[in-house]
Amino acid sequence: MSLLLSRRDLSFMLYDWLAVESLCERPRYADHSRETFEAALDTSEAIATDKFAPHNRKSDLNEPTFDGERVHMIPEVGEALRAFCDAGLMAAAQDYDLGGMQLPTVVDKACMAWFMAANIGTAAYPFLSIGNANLLLAHGTPAQIDAFVRPQMTGQFLGTMCLSEPQAGSSLSDVATRAVPDAAPDAAGDPLGPRYRLFGNKMWISAGEHELSENIVHLVLAKIPGPDGKPVPGVKGLSLFAVPKRIIKRDGTLGERNDVVLAGLNHKMGYRGTTNTLLNFGEGRHRPGADLGLDPAAGAIGWLVGQPGQGLAAMFHMMNEARIGVGLGATVLGYTGYLHALEYARNRPQGRLMGPAGKNAAAPQVPIVRHPDVRRMLLAQKAYVEGALGLNLYCARLVDDQHTHPDEAARAEAELLLDILTPIAKSWPSQWCLHANSLAIQVHGGYGYTRDYPVEQFYRDNRLNPIHEGTHGIQGLDLLGRKVVMQNGAALAALEARLRRDLGRAQAGEDAELQGYALQLDTRWRRLLAVTRELWDSGDPLLTLANASVYLEAFGHVVLAWVWLQQAMAVKGDDDFAQGKRQACRYFFAWELPSVDPQLDLLASLDTTTLDMQEGWF
Amino acid sequence: MSLLLSRRDLSFMLYDWLAVESLCERPRYADHSRETFEAALDTSEAIATDKFAPHNRKSDLNEPTFDGERVHMIPEVGEALRAFCDAGLMAAAQDYDLGGMQLPTVVDKACMAWFMAANIGTAAYPFLSIGNANLLLAHGTPAQIDAFVRPQMTGQFLGTMCLSEPQAGSSLSDVATRAVPDAAPDAAGDPLGPRYRLFGNKMWISAGEHELSENIVHLVLAKIPGPDGKPVPGVKGLSLFAVPKRIIKRDGTLGERNDVVLAGLNHKMGYRGTTNTLLNFGEGRHRPGADLGLDPAAGAIGWLVGQPGQGLAAMFHMMNEARIGVGLGATVLGYTGYLHALEYARNRPQGRLMGPAGKNAAAPQVPIVRHPDVRRMLLAQKAYVEGALGLNLYCARLVDDQHTHPDEAARAEAELLLDILTPIAKSWPSQWCLHANSLAIQVHGGYGYTRDYPVEQFYRDNRLNPIHEGTHGIQGLDLLGRKVVMQNGAALAALEARLRRDLGRAQAGEDAELQGYALQLDTRWRRLLAVTRELWDSGDPLLTLANASVYLEAFGHVVLAWVWLQQAMAVKGDDDFAQGKRQACRYFFAWELPSVDPQLDLLASLDTTTLDMQEGWF
Repeated sequence: MSLLLSRRDLSFMLYDWLAVESLCERPRYADHSRETFEAALDTSEAIATDKFAPHNRKSDLNEPTFDGERVHMIPEVGEALRAFCDAGLMAAAQDYDLGGMQLPTVVDKACMAWFMAANIGTAAYPFLSIGNANLLLAHGTPAQIDAFVRPQMTGQFLGTMCLSEPQAGSSLSDVATRAVPDAAPDAAGDPLGPRYRLFGNKMWISAGEHELSENIVHLVLAKIPGPDGKPVPGVKGLSLFAVPKRIIKRDGTLGERNDVVLAGLNHKMGYRGTTNTLLNFGEGRHRPGADLGLDPAAGAIGWLVGQPGQGLAAMFHMMNEARIGVGLGATVLGYTGYLHALEYARNRPQGRLMGPAGKNAAAPQVPIVRHPDVRRMLLAQKAYVEGALGLNLYCARLVDDQHTHPDEAARAEAELLLDILTPIAKSWPSQWCLHANSLAIQVHGGYGYTRDYPVEQFYRDNRLNPIHEGTHGIQGLDLLGRKVVMQNGAALAALEARLRRDLGRAQAGEDAELQGYALQLDTRWRRLLAVTRELWDSGDPLLTLANASVYLEAFGHVVLAWVWLQQAMAVKGDDDFAQGKRQACRYFFAWELPSVDPQLDLLASLDTTTLDMQEGWF
Repeated sequence: MSLLLSRRDLSFMLYDWLAVESLCERPRYADHSRETFEAALDTSEAIATDKFAPHNRKSDLNEPTFDGERVHMIPEVGEALRAFCDAGLMAAAQDYDLGGMQLPTVVDKACMAWFMAANIGTAAYPFLSIGNANLLLAHGTPAQIDAFVRPQMTGQFLGTMCLSEPQAGSSLSDVATRAVPDAAPDAAGDPLGPRYRLFGNKMWISAGEHELSENIVHLVLAKIPGPDGKPVPGVKGLSLFAVPKRIIKRDGTLGERNDVVLAGLNHKMGYRGTTNTLLNFGEGRHRPGADLGLDPAAGAIGWLVGQPGQGLAAMFHMMNEARIGVGLGATVLGYTGYLHALEYARNRPQGRLMGPAGKNAAAPQVPIVRHPDVRRMLLAQKAYVEGALGLNLYCARLVDDQHTHPDEAARAEAELLLDILTPIAKSWPSQWCLHANSLAIQVHGGYGYTRDYPVEQFYRDNRLNPIHEGTHGIQGLDLLGRKVVMQNGAALAALEARLRRDLGRAQAGEDAELQGYALQLDTRWRRLLAVTRELWDSGDPLLTLANASVYLEAFGHVVLAWVWLQQAMAVKGDDDFAQGKRQACRYFFAWELPSVDPQLDLLASLDTTTLDMQEGWF
């Protein structure tokens, strides 16, 4: 059995619960069937197992280095990436026209889950590139797509997202990178779009420099100076630019170096296989221009993508998918940790069970999986990781509906659901599957704390996920400050409708246990809605949002209870798998869901403890 | 201001709350005063700051290595240790007769806290040695004390505790190391005690090998074969032995190598400055004996400490202190992380506050300490680390009462309180101050995830603490399975008496807020007692103990609420410090204490979810 993910569980989620086969009725997926889905999963599992997993520890021990000129990393990363690209997986979800397979997003994400579970550091390169390509596909011109996207479909180029700066992490309105219109006469009419020169520094750019591909396409948020020559304050001033590491000549071949250079690598606690960079744009190290027939000059040459001032909107277009992707990464790190802990617990003899007459020291030791506290830790992990995987795949399924559902209203509904579920799909796995990794260490005891076992790396790798792509705190503000009130609560209403449909199914059935879950969930859901109203009725946004992180966490547990209820309703039969699903659901409702009650009490009290705390009092 | 610990907070706890000066009325501490306490704290803070903290990261980056013969480590460790020993701190709490200062334990622990906060890896060497020395002082003969303890008082020797084996971690009854009576005619009459040869492997031995001292005194749990030549099963067969790395000749000088050798270093996620070893006893690499006038032979020469079969009892004698020490280490890692996060939050500008009209993007950014969610994270850290430090010092104060209170009943009461509080003092900081370290990373955002900032190391270092000196699960079993029922509930009753005394003081006062806390705490305490009874009324120990970890956590939060109530009652005035204490107490009661309610509900339901989970269902 694989220690990366459970294929059995994936099959259950995809076919028994999420009815992914029904997508084949849609024109886009007409060539597909369960067999083609399984073939893609087979390929992914095989490459992940054979090419990604084996160098996961080696990447951790040998992080990329920078000699001032080039980045060096272990060769296995490039080899794994080539296997991934050769299998066509860069374009798995894309149009046939782009060389893609037109796989449904939900199947594509299930495939990607294998690579992230096997080696999150190496997997980051293709996944960032896929995000970059999707953004350009949505907002770029055909010429931009030809120049920047097609080479990414084969791995010839890779891509990044350049948002943060040293002084602008969570606060993107403070981005200071300037994009100055190119003064040359052809600049506005450049076939790749309006041409600019960029100047500034970008921080935390994953995959910002490496030798894994011929070129790197940076998608950069920058500000075009306003009429007064100054950048427009706030996010309204942000525009999006494509800035290749190497200039693409008019004949399509690669030319000179653009003026974007690596200023340094960040050295992290985990996730070490992925280069994380500080990039300098326009510092004059290179003076590009000649290969485009221009005067060589300092300044990174970039082409505007979409409209000026619409940069953040374009980025947000991709944000849901990027955030769900981060959540999926967190989930599968938790999942593989769980499987490793389970394997260890089944094979490690230690101690004896308590009997009515105490313990018999002369009896042989038992495998630790038989100790109730170890079972608690394993069952908790199972509940976290299978719940989180369910939520991530549910969201991926919604992406398919958003783009391909034949009914327009259903497409709009899917988009609303994605809007409100995304902060949960990102934050919940980042919190609880990280906790699962901690439990996986604990199951291993002292061995888990050593670098001879992989669980400590999962824990270190996973600690990034509550930070990047919007911190935990940012997700809370997004959920409570934006998503639950957007369009007069339309997203919240869409979620409620789905939830009520499932509660109704559970209540209408004959399974008393499911009815019980429905009742418990219904109680919390009503309370959550009431608390949401009370928070917004305060009339003071600072007060409303003060405890947004707690709101996020309570909302998350309620959503996960709903995910577990759905899984419990979807599972059939009485085999070990089905029993395990039911027991994990029992665990979630008995052990986890009740923790939201004191959280909701706190929120309902409009508690000002943290708001009242004065800086001088610390 | 120091980023290691708050001296202001220490002063408050020691003098305003725990009335440590009153200890000076006892004969043992008659030479002491607040001035001598402060002098010891000054020295500790200075050496910790100047000699321990500067190489904390360097130790992490350059962990000890083993060339097959010797262990190599950075020289700063030895230099720090020399400064520590030269200041007389190895013997700070010991008798004058041993070269000690006769400092009260509570002051000694406050001193030690500085070293652990500065560099937990280097601090581990003296602290393990102090534990070793204390055990020998309690159970060794005068000759053993002269031979093995006195050299540890100056750092000439260092000591270890050798309990675990590869196949016996939590389950000490499975220790397989054999101690065979030495066949030489003088063996029983050896001036150092009955002499044995030891054979076996010991795992996870911290400080098990190094070149920091002339000799290493291992205290080893091993089994003497019974009349049938076989080791006695269970813990009843365990005896304790002193096994020096180098033989001490009859004239007191150091002689040949004993037959205990390093088989390998464990490579850990954190705590890297401390060597953690697999030691082989009696594999024949050395054949000691000649320096004692014996025939050279394989087998590590060791001397019995205390009585045969009483090894675990002797170890348990020191277990409370060792476990409180682990808790203190966890606490101060959390504490220094908090201070680092606070410093960062006060200096890092990012974003703007929400006003009635939204945010003004043209205004300058504010320090992140002004964001409510950052304040939440800082206040949570403050509540965890100051609460935990309070509990650890409270326990240290009890150690003083246990040993030096003039009233015999009070000494017995202190021992009972220590028995029941130790699992909390060990586990609660290991859980919540580790969580504080995670919050410290989160406050730093991406920077906190890099190795350029110290918080990620604190987080990695602290992850050991829920594992060693009895895992979290073991602490739960100890608390629920042993401590709350010992002597017909005498320890629980002793704790209740103390708690009721404090509740009474709060209720009798005029502060409505304190009265409110007392009411909240009273409710939870009564519930906890009721749940304890319900658990034991089940009649099935497996069922009673199935959810012992949850019991431990709920019990811990109740105890910490009591600690916070005491601190809130002890703090006077209205300066920033006092306001901060009160706000942290408010936080604990509003945000933390209510989380025990669903835990107590779960326990009261005698939930069998984890017990019912079958191995095949995972």
